[in-house]
Amino acid sequence: MISVDFIIRVIYAETDMMGRVYYGRYYEYFEAARSHLLREIGLPYSEIEKAGFYLPVIESHCEYKNPATFEDELTIRTMFKNMPRSTLRVEYEVLKDNTIVAIGHTVHTFVNHDGKAVRPPTTFRKALEDHWNEE
Amino acid sequence: MISVDFIIRVIYAETDMMGRVYYGRYYEYFEAARSHLLREIGLPYSEIEKAGFYLPVIESHCEYKNPATFEDELTIRTMFKNMPRSTLRVEYEVLKDNTIVAIGHTVHTFVNHDGKAVRPPTTFRKALEDHWNEE
Amino acid sequence: MISVDFIIRVIYAETDMMGRVYYGRYYEYFEAARSHLLREIGLPYSEIEKAGFYLPVIESHCEYKNPATFEDELTIRTMFKNMPRSTLRVEYEVLKDNTIVAIGHTVHTFVNHDGKAVRPPTTFRKALEDHWNEE
Amino acid sequence: MISVDFIIRVIYAETDMMGRVYYGRYYEYFEAARSHLLREIGLPYSEIEKAGFYLPVIESHCEYKNPATFEDELTIRTMFKNMPRSTLRVEYEVLKDNTIVAIGHTVHTFVNHDGKAVRPPTTFRKALEDHWNEE
Repeated sequence: MISVDFIIRVIYAETDMMGRVYYGRYYEYFEAARSHLLREIGLPYSEIEKAGFYLPVIESHCEYKNPATFEDELTIRTMFKNMPRSTLRVEYEVLKDNTIVAIGHTVHTFVNHDGKAVRPPTTFRKALEDHWNEE
Repeated sequence: MISVDFIIRVIYAETDMMGRVYYGRYYEYFEAARSHLLREIGLPYSEIEKAGFYLPVIESHCEYKNPATFEDELTIRTMFKNMPRSTLRVEYEVLKDNTIVAIGHTVHTFVNHDGKAVRPPTTFRKALEDHWNEE
Repeated sequence: MISVDFIIRVIYAETDMMGRVYYGRYYEYFEAARSHLLREIGLPYSEIEKAGFYLPVIESHCEYKNPATFEDELTIRTMFKNMPRSTLRVEYEVLKDNTIVAIGHTVHTFVNHDGKAVRPPTTFRKALEDHWNEE
Repeated sequence: MISVDFIIRVIYAETDMMGRVYYGRYYEYFEAARSHLLREIGLPYSEIEKAGFYLPVIESHCEYKNPATFEDELTIRTMFKNMPRSTLRVEYEVLKDNTIVAIGHTVHTFVNHDGKAVRPPTTFRKALEDHWNEE
């Protein structure tokens, strides 16, 4: 697997009148953390796009376990647990200190500039393999 | 069941550089449509909160079938298929003309002002029963 | 001048933990209302882009007079008070019943697909002239 | 004056179909950077609120000089140039490498829990004075 942590601090814009982070905002945290993981393994998403590949989301899911609020420092743990085949599944845990705030996942396809489904680019598979961690 | 349609028009803010509605934005459409349904059955969410009840989201899910883009007019069909018990499940379909753009659901609990889980308020159950449609 | 009203209803996502609409969200209301005005005068912004013109914002401004909150129905009044020259200035008033919630403006340039400054397209000027209201 | 830099990296959610950071998103950057400055001078905004004070925005302004896009690393320079009186003015510069992306400001009032205008709390003035830099 590959697991990379990313830290964010909750801003006011992300809270709602219940005083919590709005449920839809977690998907932005997921995206920021996923992009961070890709940069960490030497494959920034902007480079993937420049090479003509896109990874649109075809499924997103989140379960909210404990609220987060303004100025909380959250750890977004992003995990690739399986090598991508026709799709890529990414898992996330949101942690505040050692408490689980939320867990979720996204599923992505690989498409080319014309929107046609393609296989994961070899550079992508290679970057994953180079950073794969047997645990 | 109860099924209510809500129309939104995609704004530029909701698009991303892929030219599509950003995946996390659908959860705002869901929320707008869910609040619309509650108003339609005479139970605006602001009134529910004034009565001391909150319906935080404990799970959210969306599957993206076809992209939507700027100025698209989208129908968000919100459905209550089961009477709430300890939780309330809400289902959504996002349609562009007759094409499915996305489907999803949210699950909510009922809590009081102190954040303690409570049963669905009777006014809530009654409003649903009054608008329940046997199909 | 041209003045067109657009109605929005505040959703939970737009509120913050102060219980008010977050200050940055007003700029999305402005955009929605501006796009609505353009559709009303027969010139949807998506058509302008298809014709190869873009109107990026070069300045935005908002003054907040009274708070707005969840489920408020707001009127966004969008006004073109002068014909565009090298730039287009758009003015906005946000009203709740008859109370001013906010006033603001945006300034836009006209650029082509390469990002070069261009004159306002003649179809744009013509659409404005056809709907200009002497008051 | 007090001047503190804050680094953000642009995420996909913040871009629009023009491939740029959406104009309204800069106000979230401003907020994140402003909160960062307050933490840096030992006065987190969450503490200010706990002490019963709020700093709602009464004016916001931004001028867009050069576009920013996905994965750009931006420096948000936040500056207090004058001690607050009945209002607090905060200035911002957004930089990409050494290029100005945007400049802006926000103006805030001080209110208590009932929304009444109050003087800046003495702890607030003191924290500013302790970090004031004569340049």
